[in-house]
Amino acid sequence: MENNIDLSEIKSPADIRKMSLPELKQLAAELRGTLIEKLSVHGGHVGPNLGMVEAVIALHYVFDTPEDKIVFDVSHQTYPHKMITGRMQAFTDPAHYDDVTGYTNPDESPYDLYSLGHTSSAVALAAGLAKARDLKGDKENVVAVIGDGSLSGGVAFEGLDYGATLGSNFIVVVNDNQMSIAENHGGIYADLRLLRNTNGEGEPNLFRSMGYAYRYVKYGNDLKSLIEMFQSVKGINYPVVVHINTEKGMGLKVAEEDKEDFHFSGPFDPKTGAPRYEGPKDGPEDYSEVFARKMLAKMKEDGRVVTITAGTPGVLGFDKARRLEAGKQFVDVGIAEQSAVDVASGLAKGGMRPVVGFVSSFLQRAFDQFSQDIALNKQAATFVVFYGSMFGMNDETHLGFFDIALLSNIPNLLYLAPTCKEEFEAMLDWSVKQDKLAVVVRTPGSSAVSNKEIQILDDYSKAEYDIVRRGEKVALIGAGSMFTYMSLAADMLAEQGVNATLINPRELSTLDTATLDSLKDYSVVITAEDGIIDGGYGQKVASYLGEAPVKVVNLGLPKKFLNRYDYSALQKECGLTPEQIAQTALAAL
Amino acid sequence: MENNIDLSEIKSPADIRKMSLPELKQLAAELRGTLIEKLSVHGGHVGPNLGMVEAVIALHYVFDTPEDKIVFDVSHQTYPHKMITGRMQAFTDPAHYDDVTGYTNPDESPYDLYSLGHTSSAVALAAGLAKARDLKGDKENVVAVIGDGSLSGGVAFEGLDYGATLGSNFIVVVNDNQMSIAENHGGIYADLRLLRNTNGEGEPNLFRSMGYAYRYVKYGNDLKSLIEMFQSVKGINYPVVVHINTEKGMGLKVAEEDKEDFHFSGPFDPKTGAPRYEGPKDGPEDYSEVFARKMLAKMKEDGRVVTITAGTPGVLGFDKARRLEAGKQFVDVGIAEQSAVDVASGLAKGGMRPVVGFVSSFLQRAFDQFSQDIALNKQAATFVVFYGSMFGMNDETHLGFFDIALLSNIPNLLYLAPTCKEEFEAMLDWSVKQDKLAVVVRTPGSSAVSNKEIQILDDYSKAEYDIVRRGEKVALIGAGSMFTYMSLAADMLAEQGVNATLINPRELSTLDTATLDSLKDYSVVITAEDGIIDGGYGQKVASYLGEAPVKVVNLGLPKKFLNRYDYSALQKECGLTPEQIAQTALAAL
Repeated sequence: MENNIDLSEIKSPADIRKMSLPELKQLAAELRGTLIEKLSVHGGHVGPNLGMVEAVIALHYVFDTPEDKIVFDVSHQTYPHKMITGRMQAFTDPAHYDDVTGYTNPDESPYDLYSLGHTSSAVALAAGLAKARDLKGDKENVVAVIGDGSLSGGVAFEGLDYGATLGSNFIVVVNDNQMSIAENHGGIYADLRLLRNTNGEGEPNLFRSMGYAYRYVKYGNDLKSLIEMFQSVKGINYPVVVHINTEKGMGLKVAEEDKEDFHFSGPFDPKTGAPRYEGPKDGPEDYSEVFARKMLAKMKEDGRVVTITAGTPGVLGFDKARRLEAGKQFVDVGIAEQSAVDVASGLAKGGMRPVVGFVSSFLQRAFDQFSQDIALNKQAATFVVFYGSMFGMNDETHLGFFDIALLSNIPNLLYLAPTCKEEFEAMLDWSVKQDKLAVVVRTPGSSAVSNKEIQILDDYSKAEYDIVRRGEKVALIGAGSMFTYMSLAADMLAEQGVNATLINPRELSTLDTATLDSLKDYSVVITAEDGIIDGGYGQKVASYLGEAPVKVVNLGLPKKFLNRYDYSALQKECGLTPEQIAQTALAAL
Repeated sequence: MENNIDLSEIKSPADIRKMSLPELKQLAAELRGTLIEKLSVHGGHVGPNLGMVEAVIALHYVFDTPEDKIVFDVSHQTYPHKMITGRMQAFTDPAHYDDVTGYTNPDESPYDLYSLGHTSSAVALAAGLAKARDLKGDKENVVAVIGDGSLSGGVAFEGLDYGATLGSNFIVVVNDNQMSIAENHGGIYADLRLLRNTNGEGEPNLFRSMGYAYRYVKYGNDLKSLIEMFQSVKGINYPVVVHINTEKGMGLKVAEEDKEDFHFSGPFDPKTGAPRYEGPKDGPEDYSEVFARKMLAKMKEDGRVVTITAGTPGVLGFDKARRLEAGKQFVDVGIAEQSAVDVASGLAKGGMRPVVGFVSSFLQRAFDQFSQDIALNKQAATFVVFYGSMFGMNDETHLGFFDIALLSNIPNLLYLAPTCKEEFEAMLDWSVKQDKLAVVVRTPGSSAVSNKEIQILDDYSKAEYDIVRRGEKVALIGAGSMFTYMSLAADMLAEQGVNATLINPRELSTLDTATLDSLKDYSVVITAEDGIIDGGYGQKVASYLGEAPVKVVNLGLPKKFLNRYDYSALQKECGLTPEQIAQTALAAL
């Protein structure tokens, strides 16, 4: 056993470049232990970080960062990188656990080149950096680190394709941990397996076929192997792929054994893996749970129903047992949102009833396919948006409030916004049954609200608003998850003697002009949506009523990349609490 | 010489399946001759279609279409397919030349599965069709035909990756004509060359590395080779790539020799290749020309300036001579819009001044990169949108009027809309000089308008409207290319004694609230933009002025996939002629 290393003394990579190999090993052990300690009480990306401790140390040991440039793909594996680039305290001191974000962030450190949370872009970004270096006549190394399932994203291939033509120093480290968030899917992973099984000697070799020299590191958690390999490619003057075979969750038994659950985890007991905080057993379900239950039943009823994910089955509520139960009717295309949409289009064309689930922030990667291959081609596929909400993930790279502006402006695409789980289920029932329309159904990140009184339809194809309460002068139109707050605001107004009209618009892509016409002589129409105002639903209402005397107030979120915001504070800032909505109505009267 | 074939007798593929090989060869010759005749007087995609005559005949000869399913990528190579699937008259009879679109279209024929005009999606779409077949227990062949440069698009790889896992009949025909629209770029093309040079025997082999069996057809314009190969894979029960080596422009000397200019061409003399109709020598330039001239000068002045295209250099005005002149400062990443944006981001990060040019309809393929890798990361790259307009391409797959709604709702992205070429140049000058902001500059498909009186700024970073004429009661806000019509409408109103305020908003992503505040007591504010109203600029104005007494009228295009529309008729339908705008103002007074 080596002497302990004082982690607080590690201020920058310069401090580790002075270490001996045994010291580096000790450092790895201590970083790993510190990580497990923090993750077990704080939560975060467990597996990706534990698997990359040695690789990150070796990269900074060998390369002259920050002059040499490393772009970490997705960057959810950069906790050890943060630890050795001046941010150790955020991992050792519980009072400072929240000082750093979960991703690289240039505002935190010159060692962080980008704020990255979507996958697969690192190779193309690094290729741009390498091209800039070449044009300037500089000589630094440019390294892209990609893996953990994100190689399947189309832009990764585009980046590899272009990078191969640089003809200069360009180092792509492929972190092969045999996993995506769940198991890997796709033809390329068979090739990675072949390469692992042949110690990198086998053919065909994907990377060589794309124009790269190729090196293989069998023990990707062995510092000596990694350091020697990185030293051998440092300063190289052509594009090379270094394929490293790492163990996701390394050093934490529960994470090694259950790689999927420990990709990302809330606080947990490091011995048993049990969550530290269970929600109340009879608490409300989330929409993932409602969705999965519903879809399993539907798939059993109807062999044409197919559920599709792009590498995030857990978001859809499909754990391993449920995927097994769904069998061939569950498709995971890997992290590849574009093909998820196109495969759905092909399935619809072939007479199936495809239902694709997406995290709001990730569906934007398939905009062109939504527009061209689904909407323009009128394919009756269903898409369910998860975390489409200010109450979704609050990292600036994972925001869930841009999708209304994105999808509701595509022709031929019906964007439904259920206000509660009863309505969500009814919309899903209808959408999967019909074969005429492309439909998107939006759910928030908060718990599923129940509302037994909501009016259920057999057919949601018409833009027909639900006038839940008919009043006068004031109309409150609450879209999707904002309906609850609008409803509470209406109650408050009633207490003050104002009988407001309360409307559930049901969908965000077209307007129920008959209902809107009936509001033209009102004093005020207030719209609220759980997304940015710009380009969204409310502005369509404001535009439609632009010539009418009625005032229109659009409530929603600002067009900003917010980061790690407080949910309640944001709601207040946007005037979206029931009290504020009632106040706005009164002020306009 | 064989007897002539009466092309009018070819009603469906059944008619060619009865033919002998000599008859099929004769058919190919006649189809080619007919195509050259039509294309030379009508224009269209010349090279892609001439190169694929034999392959299309062989596909329909061997496969039992339409039961067997063929998805043609981009589908600009499907003229011969249309000829032999019941639409011959549209190619033989000049009076019917416009009966068919330039792409596959399910409304025209059951042999056309999709309306496709964007590249790279065919493999994933076909994979969905194959999955549907497998779930139903059916047995038909599913074939994707991809090539002509579109293999580099990320979704092609995503589709290949997923298709490899089907474990059933899945046939991908790669049409390798050694070209994109211009020459091919990227590492994968080196592999295709290797495969061609080794008669398909060499390693590494990209397709095998992705999990496909692989076959090579050396003479991709030889019917016998093609038929034998397709027969050998018909009914195959695993995924296979058939790599066919074809000659783009085959049979038309000028098109074989100048593959880039004859990818798509207007009417031409088939002997000399000269255009049949030259524009007037001293006519107005288009924005491609203005852009290329400007960028060449800038790149010479400043070694940090880099011009980037994703496979469409001609759209940017960069013909071969100009690309040569620009040298290393001109980058073509191939058809790969996502990496074009990310390479620009990397270049900006590396201190360069990247400028990317995109066709409006294609930039949507990189939405996630615009949002995450440019805007969120605040990289000062410049993007120029071409054909961003109702006066752009009018095929339903190439519409240029969705980009305002798409890009103007991304935070941190300044969307400039120049009204004339003087303003376009000034905006470009400023944008390339600054290093703080991500900027998009939008140009229409029409000729570049000149306006020497436009007020030019040194800095366009502030949302500051140009009040071109200060009047009262009526405000006309004309964005970008719509400013000209608004200006004419203002003149008409002046003749009627109405002194309207005329505004050039300069940008579409944020509002000049000070100026808008000054309009609150007007009678009417009319906005006009050259894009869909939904999610666009005018709705932001309507929303902002929602509580003010002033009426707001938003003019623009409907949220629809229009197809092959008449430009003037559409302008009229949208109330966007100067007369109509003036009339709208008067009606609102």
